[in-house]
Amino acid sequence: MSFDSDTSNPYLRSAAELRVLFARDAVERDKAGGRPLEQLGLLKQSGLLNLVIPKAHGGEGQPWSTALRIVREFAKVDGSLGHLFGYHAAAQQSAYIAASGAQAAALHEASARGNWFWANNGNFRTRSLSGRRDGTHWILNGHKPFTSGSHIADRISITWLDEATGDTIAGSIPSDREGWTSLNDWDAIGQCQTGSGTCTYENVRVEASEVYDRGDEAPDAAFRTLTPFLQQGVLLNVFIGSAQGALLAARDYTVEKSRPWVHSGVERHIDDPWVKRVYGDLYTRTVAATLLADRALEVLDGAWARGTALTARERGEAAIPLAAANALAGNVALEVTSKIFEVTGARSTDNALGLDRFWRNVRTHTLHNPEEYKTRNVGHWFLTGEPPVPSILQ
Amino acid sequence: MSFDSDTSNPYLRSAAELRVLFARDAVERDKAGGRPLEQLGLLKQSGLLNLVIPKAHGGEGQPWSTALRIVREFAKVDGSLGHLFGYHAAAQQSAYIAASGAQAAALHEASARGNWFWANNGNFRTRSLSGRRDGTHWILNGHKPFTSGSHIADRISITWLDEATGDTIAGSIPSDREGWTSLNDWDAIGQCQTGSGTCTYENVRVEASEVYDRGDEAPDAAFRTLTPFLQQGVLLNVFIGSAQGALLAARDYTVEKSRPWVHSGVERHIDDPWVKRVYGDLYTRTVAATLLADRALEVLDGAWARGTALTARERGEAAIPLAAANALAGNVALEVTSKIFEVTGARSTDNALGLDRFWRNVRTHTLHNPEEYKTRNVGHWFLTGEPPVPSILQ
Amino acid sequence: MSFDSDTSNPYLRSAAELRVLFARDAVERDKAGGRPLEQLGLLKQSGLLNLVIPKAHGGEGQPWSTALRIVREFAKVDGSLGHLFGYHAAAQQSAYIAASGAQAAALHEASARGNWFWANNGNFRTRSLSGRRDGTHWILNGHKPFTSGSHIADRISITWLDEATGDTIAGSIPSDREGWTSLNDWDAIGQCQTGSGTCTYENVRVEASEVYDRGDEAPDAAFRTLTPFLQQGVLLNVFIGSAQGALLAARDYTVEKSRPWVHSGVERHIDDPWVKRVYGDLYTRTVAATLLADRALEVLDGAWARGTALTARERGEAAIPLAAANALAGNVALEVTSKIFEVTGARSTDNALGLDRFWRNVRTHTLHNPEEYKTRNVGHWFLTGEPPVPSILQ
Amino acid sequence: MSFDSDTSNPYLRSAAELRVLFARDAVERDKAGGRPLEQLGLLKQSGLLNLVIPKAHGGEGQPWSTALRIVREFAKVDGSLGHLFGYHAAAQQSAYIAASGAQAAALHEASARGNWFWANNGNFRTRSLSGRRDGTHWILNGHKPFTSGSHIADRISITWLDEATGDTIAGSIPSDREGWTSLNDWDAIGQCQTGSGTCTYENVRVEASEVYDRGDEAPDAAFRTLTPFLQQGVLLNVFIGSAQGALLAARDYTVEKSRPWVHSGVERHIDDPWVKRVYGDLYTRTVAATLLADRALEVLDGAWARGTALTARERGEAAIPLAAANALAGNVALEVTSKIFEVTGARSTDNALGLDRFWRNVRTHTLHNPEEYKTRNVGHWFLTGEPPVPSILQ
Repeated sequence: MSFDSDTSNPYLRSAAELRVLFARDAVERDKAGGRPLEQLGLLKQSGLLNLVIPKAHGGEGQPWSTALRIVREFAKVDGSLGHLFGYHAAAQQSAYIAASGAQAAALHEASARGNWFWANNGNFRTRSLSGRRDGTHWILNGHKPFTSGSHIADRISITWLDEATGDTIAGSIPSDREGWTSLNDWDAIGQCQTGSGTCTYENVRVEASEVYDRGDEAPDAAFRTLTPFLQQGVLLNVFIGSAQGALLAARDYTVEKSRPWVHSGVERHIDDPWVKRVYGDLYTRTVAATLLADRALEVLDGAWARGTALTARERGEAAIPLAAANALAGNVALEVTSKIFEVTGARSTDNALGLDRFWRNVRTHTLHNPEEYKTRNVGHWFLTGEPPVPSILQ
Repeated sequence: MSFDSDTSNPYLRSAAELRVLFARDAVERDKAGGRPLEQLGLLKQSGLLNLVIPKAHGGEGQPWSTALRIVREFAKVDGSLGHLFGYHAAAQQSAYIAASGAQAAALHEASARGNWFWANNGNFRTRSLSGRRDGTHWILNGHKPFTSGSHIADRISITWLDEATGDTIAGSIPSDREGWTSLNDWDAIGQCQTGSGTCTYENVRVEASEVYDRGDEAPDAAFRTLTPFLQQGVLLNVFIGSAQGALLAARDYTVEKSRPWVHSGVERHIDDPWVKRVYGDLYTRTVAATLLADRALEVLDGAWARGTALTARERGEAAIPLAAANALAGNVALEVTSKIFEVTGARSTDNALGLDRFWRNVRTHTLHNPEEYKTRNVGHWFLTGEPPVPSILQ
Repeated sequence: MSFDSDTSNPYLRSAAELRVLFARDAVERDKAGGRPLEQLGLLKQSGLLNLVIPKAHGGEGQPWSTALRIVREFAKVDGSLGHLFGYHAAAQQSAYIAASGAQAAALHEASARGNWFWANNGNFRTRSLSGRRDGTHWILNGHKPFTSGSHIADRISITWLDEATGDTIAGSIPSDREGWTSLNDWDAIGQCQTGSGTCTYENVRVEASEVYDRGDEAPDAAFRTLTPFLQQGVLLNVFIGSAQGALLAARDYTVEKSRPWVHSGVERHIDDPWVKRVYGDLYTRTVAATLLADRALEVLDGAWARGTALTARERGEAAIPLAAANALAGNVALEVTSKIFEVTGARSTDNALGLDRFWRNVRTHTLHNPEEYKTRNVGHWFLTGEPPVPSILQ
Repeated sequence: MSFDSDTSNPYLRSAAELRVLFARDAVERDKAGGRPLEQLGLLKQSGLLNLVIPKAHGGEGQPWSTALRIVREFAKVDGSLGHLFGYHAAAQQSAYIAASGAQAAALHEASARGNWFWANNGNFRTRSLSGRRDGTHWILNGHKPFTSGSHIADRISITWLDEATGDTIAGSIPSDREGWTSLNDWDAIGQCQTGSGTCTYENVRVEASEVYDRGDEAPDAAFRTLTPFLQQGVLLNVFIGSAQGALLAARDYTVEKSRPWVHSGVERHIDDPWVKRVYGDLYTRTVAATLLADRALEVLDGAWARGTALTARERGEAAIPLAAANALAGNVALEVTSKIFEVTGARSTDNALGLDRFWRNVRTHTLHNPEEYKTRNVGHWFLTGEPPVPSILQ
């Protein structure tokens, strides 16, 4: 029932060690924004970048639940690094979802060998990037918003619109491809080091081998629709990690620094029934949200493991725990990250402490897949038995 | 993620079958109050009354988690029967906690053989029942409030104060003992068939063999302090079962009967985004509370299985999940059981439907171990690492 | 800032005196349901039934704010009587809204002279009552649900559908009209004495003079659309009165009867910081809801006083404060009436105390004009400046 | 029911004009922190600095309600300027509370003539500033935290401890007094331009005429205890202004910029029922909090107008509306300022927009007089009729 990491898992132990390193300058880096290059270096050394790549293709072959628990672990101290790690893994696995098995295998082998860090240029909500076929390759022009990781990535996962047909095409390119630029213009109230700004495309050439092609495989297989599960998995665990981390940081402050209120009648702030109640309540709800998240991770692992054999029904059954966990985790994290100040007190608003970054991170991140629509999906399923129609965000 | 019973467990399958029978007249019985004698008969036939008694002593040897999931199962349709079953098991096991091993074994064997239903006359908060030694036996005079099950029980678990020393003494007697009377005067807004009213004692004789005596066993063993865990386990599962049951009953009504609001613009009430959201939110929080409850049951099983080897530290570690689960479950159940009406609509307040009984049951039952103090205990532990001091209610 | 009545107003002073009398058996009458005939007699003696009828037509010429504060006053102890009084006044004034000035005057004079109590058979949501013209009169057949007051009324305000055209026609008849029957079949979890069940119509004749006819007056005047304001005014003040009354009853119980929690460390329950906080919070929110309700009453008085000169814009501006007040009052009342038990304690669930009737009343009454739609209307106006389109329920 | 300023009041009209000017660079200044010198110049030109000084002493003789509505007006766009203006007025009036009438008059005349801006060095919670008598004057050494306005003030209101007796002494000095330094070291997550950091004292001389001396006037007059009312009045109106301003800024963004959610099925974001509901709910609660605040301002004006004739009972009666209004306003403002993002959307987290400053300001400011203790005071009064004991923070 604590928020401790599962150190019996060597990958999570590694992540916990990185967390300690990341924590050292998390407050300063949050203020600085920009590129967490030193941390990227540590991640590369750790071997964790290849975590989800199958062993057969040079990776660690670990389940998503482990990857997402690492997101959670990092987010305890640094929401940006949790986010970057999660979107890296999702972008890396885009080939597994969208390409043929052979193509994915080749790409994963290259990724593992090169220890690539991946970024996401796959935002579907804008129609701002289009391409035209030019023989076997494509030429892309336009831009993409919300390109998490693009400021530090080796490899970029992309989607664009076919000018001729309006179809969405997917692929990936190296980040040194001519004509592609990360503006590194992300300047938001939270998730400050995620580089989630704009990338521009000026006659960017994508080779035929870089375009994801399923070949003969069924185009509408349920497995092809799992991308939103990965996004939701990342959001979910940034929320859980932020809530846990905020609560732990607040507790330390309350225990070590906070003074009892002048009318409290107690000598230690922690002996005020009010302080006990606030921590008890926030802890209880954070634990409940964590259990729901853990359940969602189990379900996600199960769906992922089915691969192309995944049925529409199974996809639907997995969507609900994920949606429910997302909705609860976001709400709990928002409340925890704001409420903690009530019991840390007036001096805890010092910028040097950076205790507000948890709220800013969660507030920013919750807007990318609104709780309202997740909750409606859960309700619709509860009322009718029908899961959400697979789509880019549900 | 559904609220279905685990029918792979034969005891829970049995309980689910009983639930269907109990549901038939649950609304009428709630209004009638008094004694659920027909249901007691069904319980006796089911063999479930001996569930927690060790196999060696003629029982089924099942863990508390199974007993408490049966409480939950019954409470889906009838909070009173969930409550009665839970307090029966707790009263029955009082011997195991408070008596010596040999005495408990003898009593459990008799109980299993006689298929006894137990009631609780052990409320500690009043000092209204006292006894004096008369040779080897005791003579009790006074009364006890909140005597759940006493109106239908075969055996009564009792505590009283020793007139001479003020010490609390425990034991049990058959319900036909001269001088002992259940007034059957429980008339509350909820848990209407639990018989939780007053029992009176006029020169009631308790034989030496009926007085719990630990003999040489350590009087302050952590195991001796587990009674409040059992009470909290019952409360917890009445809350969870009530929340689940209310949500299921409301869903059926909404799907089958509710009409869309006049300004909704939809043809089916369930297509109103508002209705989806309310159900989605209530379901999500009920599932989260259920997972926390399930975690608490695991912990309770672990502590119980340790028997007299249980250490104070282990007792403390088990207290927190139980307290947290209780607090969350009560709050969620209160909200669910009141909020459902918003989406079932004006006609669902018909008394024949009895949809309000869930709120009345939960509202009544939550007052017996207030959320505020459970939450403070959790907060104190989170801040200091110290679990609550073992006591009659924590 | 207290919940005291404004005894400088003689009508409110009268109402406060009646409240004391109504309180005596409010709990018993809530259980009995049926007809509050003794209370109807007291109301008739008080002269309050003619409160809103203009002085020129034999009434007291008082504003709606006074009538609705009387609803609030009664609802402090008896939601049914508040509801009945409010719907009486609204049904009585239906003529003023729907008939010509001369017709309304004549009807109000007769009502004042006869000291009539009015009931509502005007529910618009069902299409279950229709009529056909037969020369100058009408013959009605069918039924009406939710006919508050019909079990004790002298005069019935009706709407029906014209078989030929589908138009809605309004009028009123005496309650002894042949073929009209109040089944007195209301059996709901709350508002138990309001007689809000079914009325049946078997060839009920409505004379030409009993049919509301605006003559030459503009049919679409904004004033003609004020009926939902009156309904919302009644609901609003039943909510406010119930919240205040529940809080006052709970306070008395807590102060006089409640015992401190066993682990509280205080000698008086009221010295527990938890108890102070709960009462402080519920009081604060009830006062805020009351101020918003008072603002709505001012606005309603202003709109009503404009009579047929009321413009659509003025109607729209008045709709928002009423909707906002309704939404907040309902939510606050639901929370107050459920939460009070937390601080009154286990023994306060005794049926003899009847403390649950406040929740049952509010829960029942809030379903007749859902908060969701009021809140959406307020939000739509805040975002666009557009008030709700006048309609039967907004 | 709108959040418009009352432009019939010339002082509020002036304040509204200043608000427009302050809004232009509020976002940039929030990021810059430091000294709002240009805005101080505008305030000096406006004549508003002398608002509460009686006309007889060269001021405008306006009530506190006007001053605090100006706080609210400024806080709609800039919490720091609202805060500074409010604490200026409170520090200026400290003489009126703590000095004799003649001394206050002389000081107010000088203040009005010099158009002084006042700062607060009167924080009572620390014992970090002490003084010793040296003949008729005092020599102060130490420091003060939370010295709002000290970075831009002409005059400083001070309290210190008498080294010899431990008594608290009050007075005021010009800000160019030798040995007094404002470190301008405030670096918090909110209220960034308030200069609420540390002031240091090195042998600061306070002349006898600068020490507040009540002369023969009753030392324990209730009026002498009104300082916390002024502080609470400032906090309250920073909360209300921030909530209103955040809601207005969010609305403009939602209307002009926000896009409908991809699964919403609507063409305009404002047509999503979810968006309507969120705005409707936040607006309704903000209006209710505003009405409660307005009520508190009326009560404060009444108490202030009584001057030294104010009785302890009157003081007590005034404390409750202020405490209740504070508690509600803080809670509502916290929720509004966080929740708005849900309906403005992902792009609204852009730092250039600065929409998060409302939450950061409110979160920071709410910690200076916790809601928990205000609410307990209200609850204690509701239960017992006893107002809070006058003290530095209640």
